[in-house]
Amino acid sequence: MSDSKIIYLDNNATTKVDERVVEVMLPYFSQYYGNPSSMYELGGKNSKVIKEARERIKEFFGANSSKEIYFTASGSESANMAIRGVLSADKSKNHIITTKVEHACVLNLCKQLEKEGYNIDYAGVNASGEVNTDEIYNAITDKTALVACMYANNETGTIFPVREIAEKVKTINPKTKVFVDAVQAAGKIELNVKDTQIDMMGISGHKFHAPKGIGALYVNSSTLITPLVIGGHQENGKRAGTENVPFIVGMAEAAKIAQEALLFENTEVKRLRDKLEKGLLSRIYNARLNSSAQNRVPNTTNIGFEYIEGELILLNMNDYGICASSGSACTSGSLDPSHVLKAMGVPFTALHGSIRFSLSRYTTEDEINYTLEKMPPIIERLAKISPYQAELTELQERKGLK
Amino acid sequence: MSDSKIIYLDNNATTKVDERVVEVMLPYFSQYYGNPSSMYELGGKNSKVIKEARERIKEFFGANSSKEIYFTASGSESANMAIRGVLSADKSKNHIITTKVEHACVLNLCKQLEKEGYNIDYAGVNASGEVNTDEIYNAITDKTALVACMYANNETGTIFPVREIAEKVKTINPKTKVFVDAVQAAGKIELNVKDTQIDMMGISGHKFHAPKGIGALYVNSSTLITPLVIGGHQENGKRAGTENVPFIVGMAEAAKIAQEALLFENTEVKRLRDKLEKGLLSRIYNARLNSSAQNRVPNTTNIGFEYIEGELILLNMNDYGICASSGSACTSGSLDPSHVLKAMGVPFTALHGSIRFSLSRYTTEDEINYTLEKMPPIIERLAKISPYQAELTELQERKGLK
Repeated sequence: MSDSKIIYLDNNATTKVDERVVEVMLPYFSQYYGNPSSMYELGGKNSKVIKEARERIKEFFGANSSKEIYFTASGSESANMAIRGVLSADKSKNHIITTKVEHACVLNLCKQLEKEGYNIDYAGVNASGEVNTDEIYNAITDKTALVACMYANNETGTIFPVREIAEKVKTINPKTKVFVDAVQAAGKIELNVKDTQIDMMGISGHKFHAPKGIGALYVNSSTLITPLVIGGHQENGKRAGTENVPFIVGMAEAAKIAQEALLFENTEVKRLRDKLEKGLLSRIYNARLNSSAQNRVPNTTNIGFEYIEGELILLNMNDYGICASSGSACTSGSLDPSHVLKAMGVPFTALHGSIRFSLSRYTTEDEINYTLEKMPPIIERLAKISPYQAELTELQERKGLK
Repeated sequence: MSDSKIIYLDNNATTKVDERVVEVMLPYFSQYYGNPSSMYELGGKNSKVIKEARERIKEFFGANSSKEIYFTASGSESANMAIRGVLSADKSKNHIITTKVEHACVLNLCKQLEKEGYNIDYAGVNASGEVNTDEIYNAITDKTALVACMYANNETGTIFPVREIAEKVKTINPKTKVFVDAVQAAGKIELNVKDTQIDMMGISGHKFHAPKGIGALYVNSSTLITPLVIGGHQENGKRAGTENVPFIVGMAEAAKIAQEALLFENTEVKRLRDKLEKGLLSRIYNARLNSSAQNRVPNTTNIGFEYIEGELILLNMNDYGICASSGSACTSGSLDPSHVLKAMGVPFTALHGSIRFSLSRYTTEDEINYTLEKMPPIIERLAKISPYQAELTELQERKGLK
């Protein structure tokens, strides 16, 4: 791989930091390096820039007040802080409802909470990856502390109707809190949390061209949480640790740019995504679409290449400098097939050969053309060495290709 | 305050990021931005640089294996992860011993743990700020889960005999775990944790010229902890969240530079600190040394200016661009006098007017001379408007000045 030739189609794993974001962060390393808690101007200035950044992130969430915004170090910390936070603040309830397709930071935390005595219900999804909302509603009891549901799925891009879900949850039990993991929605669709019944929402900077190592959590003013990291008075006593001034400033800038680029994301990025998706499906006979066609973030497609091993596909793509993924980055390294695709009932024939392509505003038409040129021969080559020759032949015959 | 004229003597609050550290971080924002968990080379490269950085931080701790090193977002997170981690991993013990002069991230966490049912003993310190180790040893029972003791105090610089403490604790109860908050020791003295009985040790990058927002926790191989942030497989399953690649690389570089600069720190920085300390004590009649003269990190002095308000001193210093602090940055904003100085029994006459000066390898002789020139008239001016005129006169008479 030469540095110059990378076709980066894995923006749901992480994104390139926008050069403008790097630019605004730079002075805060060696020039304006004061501790925001300090009395003198070198510190006070940073206290002010954090305030401005918090205001900006408030706008990004579409929240009512910047007092509802907490900076964290990651989307995972945001989720842990929200979920542990409400559970610790009110120990009278022991029931949580989530979905089968959440990110590891919610699912693995829920597994741990089960060990600690909580009852967890996991709502399923349909073949398009859409959550069965009735399973959520029907599970609610007066012991339900929390409903945790993602805004958009990281593997399929499927958008969940979190506004509707929050409203309905509150109708059934007004005391149940609703946490939304918006990590994959932020920068792709408007969040507008103030117009919803959602109590808490988490985002991660590195999914929208801010650096890795910074996130934010929205907690509405009527929701009480205890801190996950206890210590100093930072973040209104809810999250101790000297503030990461450069990344806070950087994420605010990235959020501003992302908000301005929303239209572009939903037209141009979507156009390229659709071109890639249609092109792959039409040129490769054993390709099938795993994602829901409707209700999807504009940058994501998930294609199953039947009877082929995903890791082999990725290795071959890497030879051409094309970056994509099977499953999520946070669960990679494991040979288990994606829990998301399994929950969708994707047939085992496609389960192991499913690839997520996720674009960004940096993706070019040339890159999509290049990918469309390289993918068919890769898949063809791998099909030839697949142990499922009879099945592949049958598939070709079914499609009238043989 | 003009940017060009800042005399930064508050390096225990935070430090300027070394330009060489900024340099090594830069490529990881927009060029090598891959997710370390990803299969392709853009990700794999980052997995490798994290491995190298972990090796480097292992050297900095003087640990046996890089498997004992976890990256965190702050010293506070390191302390919370260590303390919560051992308590959750073994719930059979409910007793903790710490000291009265710990940082807020340990003290406030202990206060919370008290509410959760833990018994906490707080060992005191003498007038020099040295911990009464017998109070620690005498408090140990078979229910003692943890002894948490800092390596060097942030306000006075006093070094605690943590090796001795760990050894003695293990003799009394081999099952008691020892956590050392080394945030203010790192970069000032050798840590060499492998030669000790210390089980866990936390550091924070921004105290040794790495950025704010990155820390590390050493946990020896025989100590089991549960994660504070649950989710993906990062940090060997002990701390979820996509790795902050640039800051991890940056902190490793800062650690290398700091280790190389240890001699300079203990000769040149110490010389300037001693010059400042002696100069202030000899030129200002109502100045007294709060720190222990011996057993101190080389960069810190804490001077009480009797009968004068600390915040007023700091404001006047700010007019000359001199940055220092009263108490720690993490507890500033509060008008309560320092809990550390109170525990040391500093008389109330000096408690409110105590200023911490903390130098770094960037501090110059000119800056110390400038500070020694500006401080006496500041204190003199403020003494004139102090409500304690009779006491100040008596002090002058006692010193033969009137």
